Amino acid sequence: MRLDVVFTPVGLTPADVAGRTVFVIDVLRATTTMCAALKHGARAIIPVSSPEEALRLQQTIGADEVVLAGERNCVPIPGFQLGNSPLEMTTERVGGKLVVVTTTNGTQALLAVQAAGTVFIAAAANLSVVGARAEAAWSDQRDVLIVCAGRENAFALEDAYTAGRLAVAAMGGRRLRRGLNDAALACVDLVRRYGDRWERPLAVSRAGRDLIGLGLGHDVKDSARQDAYPVLAQYHDRRVALVPGA
Amino acid sequence: MRLDVVFTPVGLTPADVAGRTVFVIDVLRATTTMCAALKHGARAIIPVSSPEEALRLQQTIGADEVVLAGERNCVPIPGFQLGNSPLEMTTERVGGKLVVVTTTNGTQALLAVQAAGTVFIAAAANLSVVGARAEAAWSDQRDVLIVCAGRENAFALEDAYTAGRLAVAAMGGRRLRRGLNDAALACVDLVRRYGDRWERPLAVSRAGRDLIGLGLGHDVKDSARQDAYPVLAQYHDRRVALVPGA
Repeated sequence: MRLDVVFTPVGLTPADVAGRTVFVIDVLRATTTMCAALKHGARAIIPVSSPEEALRLQQTIGADEVVLAGERNCVPIPGFQLGNSPLEMTTERVGGKLVVVTTTNGTQALLAVQAAGTVFIAAAANLSVVGARAEAAWSDQRDVLIVCAGRENAFALEDAYTAGRLAVAAMGGRRLRRGLNDAALACVDLVRRYGDRWERPLAVSRAGRDLIGLGLGHDVKDSARQDAYPVLAQYHDRRVALVPGA
Repeated sequence: MRLDVVFTPVGLTPADVAGRTVFVIDVLRATTTMCAALKHGARAIIPVSSPEEALRLQQTIGADEVVLAGERNCVPIPGFQLGNSPLEMTTERVGGKLVVVTTTNGTQALLAVQAAGTVFIAAAANLSVVGARAEAAWSDQRDVLIVCAGRENAFALEDAYTAGRLAVAAMGGRRLRRGLNDAALACVDLVRRYGDRWERPLAVSRAGRDLIGLGLGHDVKDSARQDAYPVLAQYHDRRVALVPGA
């Protein structure tokens, strides 16, 4: 049984993900924002790869059912009602709606693992919930794959730290070595380095510094609140939704 | 000025490397073996992408001038005189020769950065020498790029640790944050984690464990000897050779 981390979805093949329990992380901010939206009553999130596809989907389904959300390089998209901030996902805005979302890295990571049987979204915001699910998979001797969205196809510190937290949770709080790939070992080392404090790894990461520089430090702070939006959400049939009964 | 690390050469473009001082690391074992060969009198190393190309080159240049070396998945290549072990690179075997080499990951990394102005090969075996060169580049406010060969296009712990040691050397032994990308930050964290002992990160890495499992633990040990083959070697015009006067 294996617990692997990949730092970007680049090059992942259907064979890499098939039969594994997959967790996708884009803690700044896509997966955090998805947790916030679902916590506040969104019916589902539909990740799409481009703004054009989002606009077409809104026309098809109907504007009263759909809210468009997302960003490109941290900036809102023209014609979209919402950006990619967890703080925007209020009950008034997303309750009962389908949220069609496109982001620079996070949605690409989800689309890359479509072939997996079971895909959960993970962030600080739902760490305890997904951690329990990862631990259950590990105890059942199922292979776990943690996919970091990364940043422009490269390593992102905040996702790697989150992957480390999730890996430690999967192992029941222990820090084992057996069955972990090198990337997973390095993520566990990051947890050793930064401890339990989410603020620091998020704020020193390039993504965190960019967001703070753009005046979006409140998003970094909100993304660092562990278990702020404690939902178990699965990506299935091209949409992210709460797991019934979880 | 920037000090960036990439964990694999995948997706590197000529624009990414142009104008930067580049260091390529494949500590288990390609860059270590190159240092050993040059230390023991090889005229140059010529990295090529396939065994077929190596055999063709030997025919073209002449069998008395050329030694073929390399591996595929840690195993020697039929028709090649040498494998990919630093311990094989004795004066008797490589002195005065051109060593044509093809390896699973290391030579691919070199070929990916051909467009860079200045490319050095780095390993534990020449850390102090390349560290001084990296520090000089950093002091001159030149951008530094450290390219890990990685393993099958994924993160490799031993290369990342080596990149961290080189990054710390570039900063004159300090552990700064400014100008480092997220991957470089994580590599410096690995140095914090493992300290100065090369044996541990090399032996716990997947590559190290595989080599030990294949009975090649002596190669892991030799690759962990800091400054064992203290050469400054540059990749230029498709060959790796000592920098004159260095």
